[in-house]
Amino acid sequence: MQNVFQSPSRVVVLSGGMGGAKFLQGLKHLLPDAHITVVANTCDDMWVHGLRVCPDLDTVMYTLGDGIDRDRGWGRTDETWSTKEDLAAYGAGLEWFGLGDRDIATHLLRTTLLRGGATLTEVTARLCERWRPGVELLPMTDDEVETHVVIEDAEGPRTIHFQEYWVRLRAEVPARELIFQGLAQSAPTSAVLTAIADADLVILPPSNPVVSVGTILGVPGLSDAIRSTSAPVVGLSPIVGGAHVRGMAEQMLASIGVGVSAEAVGLHYGARSTGGVLDGWLVDTVDASAVPALQAAAIRAVAVPLMMTDVDATAAMARSAIELVR
Amino acid sequence: MQNVFQSPSRVVVLSGGMGGAKFLQGLKHLLPDAHITVVANTCDDMWVHGLRVCPDLDTVMYTLGDGIDRDRGWGRTDETWSTKEDLAAYGAGLEWFGLGDRDIATHLLRTTLLRGGATLTEVTARLCERWRPGVELLPMTDDEVETHVVIEDAEGPRTIHFQEYWVRLRAEVPARELIFQGLAQSAPTSAVLTAIADADLVILPPSNPVVSVGTILGVPGLSDAIRSTSAPVVGLSPIVGGAHVRGMAEQMLASIGVGVSAEAVGLHYGARSTGGVLDGWLVDTVDASAVPALQAAAIRAVAVPLMMTDVDATAAMARSAIELVR
Repeated sequence: MQNVFQSPSRVVVLSGGMGGAKFLQGLKHLLPDAHITVVANTCDDMWVHGLRVCPDLDTVMYTLGDGIDRDRGWGRTDETWSTKEDLAAYGAGLEWFGLGDRDIATHLLRTTLLRGGATLTEVTARLCERWRPGVELLPMTDDEVETHVVIEDAEGPRTIHFQEYWVRLRAEVPARELIFQGLAQSAPTSAVLTAIADADLVILPPSNPVVSVGTILGVPGLSDAIRSTSAPVVGLSPIVGGAHVRGMAEQMLASIGVGVSAEAVGLHYGARSTGGVLDGWLVDTVDASAVPALQAAAIRAVAVPLMMTDVDATAAMARSAIELVR
Repeated sequence: MQNVFQSPSRVVVLSGGMGGAKFLQGLKHLLPDAHITVVANTCDDMWVHGLRVCPDLDTVMYTLGDGIDRDRGWGRTDETWSTKEDLAAYGAGLEWFGLGDRDIATHLLRTTLLRGGATLTEVTARLCERWRPGVELLPMTDDEVETHVVIEDAEGPRTIHFQEYWVRLRAEVPARELIFQGLAQSAPTSAVLTAIADADLVILPPSNPVVSVGTILGVPGLSDAIRSTSAPVVGLSPIVGGAHVRGMAEQMLASIGVGVSAEAVGLHYGARSTGGVLDGWLVDTVDASAVPALQAAAIRAVAVPLMMTDVDATAAMARSAIELVR
């Protein structure tokens, strides 16, 4: 931790989808005047019927732009499903994918702009002109990257897209291995590197440590940028009491051999002073016993309530995170 | 006219959109056991938000497959418009284009298959597996062709896509010139050439003689195929009493210097024996005075009612066409 700061004014958040978006709502509430840059995971991205779909970017954009369906937690308000019904009538495949008609407008515009030569960073900025999410939303990379999952079922071992694993199989089949297609060859964007270098706080929200934050940190050079920024780096555990709060951190942690606990995930990220990325790590009050081991590993740690039950509770989590690395 | 035939069993119809589709309903009613091949105009095709849209193919497919919105005469039954609304909210452009959500499923599947290397002929066959139109539906060419219109307005002369001229401007601005982009470099498909060669009847339905039938005949080699088939070729006038029955034949005929009359259009197509494409030409009873001039030009002609008021009236027109060239 290099800096002392009062109220951070340039915050970078490494975000997945739902968990990150929910955390960002609390952070915006806490810091209405801060410039918040969101570096979003793009390893969930997928080609669906010729459309480039970016689930995490869109979940953050729709959530912060008040266009999200709050009950589902993904996709658009007032959604209709006519295209999906008709694609099924054609037997076009991918029936399990939740492709809503309003959502398709986003994907059509994105795909058209990408095919015209725009970067995903430029496209995302264009889409955000409509949604005005109140943050600078950046993809972690402009390169095409995709998480694939090796599963084994009656048909033998095979690789499927992460979205299929998550949406169709509901992560109920063991993930033998995760393949981050293209990730090792990808590059962080200059916008991401600049935001991290110029930040006065970097936050790892309670997003999935493997397939969301893990993939962001897997973009070559991005972890180094976080290790070398003068801003403190603080994370919030997505594991509470030995289970994930939402999503499927348990299944994913198993696939990389990391234990399902707030302590294990904190130690997996590691202390910045010893080659990791964290200065501080928040665990839930039920995991208070993890604090000494984390501190012994040179990670400041504190136990506070980590359930994002509403925007005030989430803002309080963000405040605790800031205070921990002040 | 080379053949004598009783009831034709292999019929080829050169079709535009609505007029052709309506005629085909009557023809199918008249000849339930015939193999009908539809060679559809593709010069109306357009890229819309990265989707390849083929209005005439789809109008024929949806009409004969009972998926058309009968009130509008184009697009899908039970259509919703969510994607279009959201594209407008993005300011994505092309707001005038009637892009329905169910229709988008057709365009998405077509575009994905085309990008995967399938020909438009193959794609159309795949789409027809669902719609079962009861005809063999073929694009006139697998090459990308588009009709553009030179207009002049307050901004000066400029070129717009035919769809924009028709849908947005409602053909209310003079068409200074028609540009058939790519048509001179296009090739008819082997499926089209084979169907024409093997036909025992070729019909030009009352489709637009310039931007529908005219463009089909403009595919290099296609007119020659029609001139050399052993089947008789018969057409039905889309002009009744000096005006088109539907669409915009008047505006288009003006742009190529052809008069707006059943006689002028018949003479424009010309007699097969003198280098044209017609053996016979049906005009409406109100245009009976045109018959002698057409016959003098070596085109068999007869005046019969040519209003497609219902399927029986349309079937009667088809019967008259067949009898004229028997």
